[in-house]
Amino acid sequence: AGDVKAGRTKAAQCQACHGLDGMSKLPEAPNLAGQTEEYLVKALNDFRSGARQNEMMTMMAKGLSDADIANLAAYYHSLGKQ
Amino acid sequence: AGDVKAGRTKAAQCQACHGLDGMSKLPEAPNLAGQTEEYLVKALNDFRSGARQNEMMTMMAKGLSDADIANLAAYYHSLGKQ
Repeated sequence: AGDVKAGRTKAAQCQACHGLDGMSKLPEAPNLAGQTEEYLVKALNDFRSGARQNEMMTMMAKGLSDADIANLAAYYHSLGKQ
Repeated sequence: AGDVKAGRTKAAQCQACHGLDGMSKLPEAPNLAGQTEEYLVKALNDFRSGARQNEMMTMMAKGLSDADIANLAAYYHSLGKQ
């Protein structure tokens, strides 16, 4: 499982759309707070690999390592209960 | 915007994985409660069109009309705050 603190640091680059608290800042961006960790890992892996396509997320995911993805998923999952 | 009551009825087919309350029943299924409506509509449209691939969701989305999608998005969005 990922590291929540490292995920929080990495999440600086996600907050414009998803919020540092995991609550969406724009209608097309999903809330992430409390999301299941496995789903978040799959989503980021799929954006990075191209299996899932989205202009913004494809770009953002390209720079993520496996550890970054695990940490981000742990962080957003940790944010309260949905 | 969709009809919440019609969405609740239609959501009977979603609840085994996503819960009738929008809280995931299995780790690979995301929570949907309170999710942004626009994101939910896009997700279902993308599964239906094949732009987004997932064995289960591709199958489930195939049978949905535009109205079903709008109603389901309205219903899951209406479920409390995440």
